[in-house]
Amino acid sequence: SINPERLLGRLTELGNIGRDGGGQLVRLAATDSEKLGRDKFVSWIEQAGLELAVDRIGNIFGIWKPIGVADEAPLMLGSHIDTVINAGIYDGCYGVLSGLEVIETLLEAGFEPSRPIVVAAFTNEEGVRYAPDMMGSLVYAGGLDVEIALATVGTDGSALGSELQRIGYDGKHEPGFMRPHAYIELHIEQGPVLEREGVQIGAVENLQGISWQRVTIEGDANHAGTTPISMRRDAGYVAARVIIFLRDRAKNSNTPTVATVGCMEFQPNAINVIPSRAAFTVDLRDPDESRLRQEEAALASFLEELEQQEGVSIKVERLARFEPVQFDRNIVEMIEGAAKSGGHSCRRMTSGAGHDAQMIARIAPAAMIFVPSIGGISHNPRENTPDADLIAGANMLLDVVRQLTAK
Amino acid sequence: SINPERLLGRLTELGNIGRDGGGQLVRLAATDSEKLGRDKFVSWIEQAGLELAVDRIGNIFGIWKPIGVADEAPLMLGSHIDTVINAGIYDGCYGVLSGLEVIETLLEAGFEPSRPIVVAAFTNEEGVRYAPDMMGSLVYAGGLDVEIALATVGTDGSALGSELQRIGYDGKHEPGFMRPHAYIELHIEQGPVLEREGVQIGAVENLQGISWQRVTIEGDANHAGTTPISMRRDAGYVAARVIIFLRDRAKNSNTPTVATVGCMEFQPNAINVIPSRAAFTVDLRDPDESRLRQEEAALASFLEELEQQEGVSIKVERLARFEPVQFDRNIVEMIEGAAKSGGHSCRRMTSGAGHDAQMIARIAPAAMIFVPSIGGISHNPRENTPDADLIAGANMLLDVVRQLTAK
Ligand SMILES: NC(=O)NCCC(=O)O
Ligand SMILES: NC(=O)NCCC(=O)O
Repeated sequence: SINPERLLGRLTELGNIGRDGGGQLVRLAATDSEKLGRDKFVSWIEQAGLELAVDRIGNIFGIWKPIGVADEAPLMLGSHIDTVINAGIYDGCYGVLSGLEVIETLLEAGFEPSRPIVVAAFTNEEGVRYAPDMMGSLVYAGGLDVEIALATVGTDGSALGSELQRIGYDGKHEPGFMRPHAYIELHIEQGPVLEREGVQIGAVENLQGISWQRVTIEGDANHAGTTPISMRRDAGYVAARVIIFLRDRAKNSNTPTVATVGCMEFQPNAINVIPSRAAFTVDLRDPDESRLRQEEAALASFLEELEQQEGVSIKVERLARFEPVQFDRNIVEMIEGAAKSGGHSCRRMTSGAGHDAQMIARIAPAAMIFVPSIGGISHNPRENTPDADLIAGANMLLDVVRQLTAK
Repeated sequence: SINPERLLGRLTELGNIGRDGGGQLVRLAATDSEKLGRDKFVSWIEQAGLELAVDRIGNIFGIWKPIGVADEAPLMLGSHIDTVINAGIYDGCYGVLSGLEVIETLLEAGFEPSRPIVVAAFTNEEGVRYAPDMMGSLVYAGGLDVEIALATVGTDGSALGSELQRIGYDGKHEPGFMRPHAYIELHIEQGPVLEREGVQIGAVENLQGISWQRVTIEGDANHAGTTPISMRRDAGYVAARVIIFLRDRAKNSNTPTVATVGCMEFQPNAINVIPSRAAFTVDLRDPDESRLRQEEAALASFLEELEQQEGVSIKVERLARFEPVQFDRNIVEMIEGAAKSGGHSCRRMTSGAGHDAQMIARIAPAAMIFVPSIGGISHNPRENTPDADLIAGANMLLDVVRQLTAK
């Protein structure tokens, strides 16, 4: 079984890289602080004696390529090490470091796999700085042209390609250069289901659809004191109407639909000026594609209504759109079996978050293992999972990897 | 009568000082760009042969002190030259430059006033960078301690006192050093009333109450994809509820109450993170003090309700609070009389905007003259007033000044 001290120690060590002045963990894709995290991961790859490869979109691979089976398609493990703003330490890093831990454990045990085993850290999974999310794995799977991805302009006006060059992670390999035999991603659930039901392992069988849009409302600046309510074209008020609309629909729908407005910006953003512009993001998700389309259509027609009613003009830009994904049935069953023989309770489940596994599923059989998140909290510094669950998850991954690479 | 070319030329010249990279007029109080505007005004004061004085809060005075009447209490004219973000060129500057124009016209005509005449440009009238608004005139009138005002921290984290020092407008005079005999402020209406009624001159008899607050909602960051709607404590959603509440109340009230949310900030402001914090400003106004109190109380109890309902915590901070102001009846009548003898249509009216006159009214008889704003537009680069109305207003001011300083 895996080395718990090494895994937990590395999680803490990586989690302390990229803290800002206020102690918040902010390791956005391709920033200086993320470079430090990448450097640390690369040092561990080299320490383990693995082969290092970086591709053009900055994905990092640690490759164990035993003689004799070097030409076989590799089993790939992985996730990401970029974070959101004010993040927890487990999201992504747990999957990457467990992948590395499993490889090191097998190496140390003298295990002889039937194929190479690779641990991957994919670029810009979070999508906070550059949209879409899961960008590195999407490019790797051929779902987005690498040149287009490198030209993406971030929330801070930077281009991803220049930033990767700047931090020295513009690799030489063409994305997709290794076609995996299979892909497994271990991750914290980031939601409340496992904890609420007292279940230790989630065998993730599917992942909901994700729709990201940027909405910009153009109204008219005017004086807050002199302009009668009836004469206003208040972009901020219209933005508020959209937030309420999305929330009420999701709440009253009796479906698992979720809707979130995470970013908001007013212009000119002055206390006594009616906002001339409000720009905000909409994150809509549903496990059912037809329902997700329905929600997108409902939003679109509500925006049209608001244009008429409020005399504003509204522009919508698509930032990301991914259909729901079904994971590989065989691997899901293998995970359930491994949980059973390890004595862990297990349930099949849907992932609410997006993951690199959903992209790699386009080119290889893929599935995910979830462990519980205390209080269902994620994208928050209070994100946490009991050590015992972290260790159990990594051992589950070890077991599944062993089965998938048995001679 | 006044020199139209000089007045209109200076309005254009000053209006071109403080343009940002995109050509927007942004001359926030005590910034580098406002320093350039101040320097220009000071050069015109010196060119006209007036005595220059700057007080500790940065108010600038151009003083015409004819021998023989130098010890009399001066008649004061004025307004401000700071602007909002992406402003028009008339708000404030029209009153300052017309005051200077009237003095120069009287000087050139050999007029012998019964008392000194002063033109003032008050610091930070807009309140966009530092709250409260009308700060320079409020301090001048003794309504706010100068030390407290200088210590005010702005939206950009700067302290007003340090900024005044930096731009060289930390003057020596104690605010209030000249107690005016009377104060008159000429201003664009910034609202739709005069234009809609086809009236050329507004004799402003009162000014509505102003209530500024900053509201901060603290919820909980969590994952946008995994967190069920029922488990969210979404600070952005709660902020949207407040915007809708204020708007609906103001709209359905059958009163002139106005309510505006001009500034908004989400944290962490990331696309897939439920906002943990939303901070925004509330600008509430009403000509009736008891109604304004009612509106403040209604907001306060709605915020309490939201705390209960949504499990968020809410902090409210007071940024400005001014009761409605009644202007001097005699001066208002004098303005009406001057309009009549000048052949201009005139109506009494309430000011929807805050003005320095409302502060100086605490220490001297004060009133205001309004001219029409095309389309009622202000705090917007499309702010405009026909030249003929600008000239008529300045000549009206000339006439009233002549009456108030006749020997
Ligand atoms: N796992 C995770 O938080 N991914 C980020 C992409 C998303 O689901 O918003
Ligand atoms: N005149 C003017 O726009 N004053 C600014 C203060 C306010 O009314 O908001």
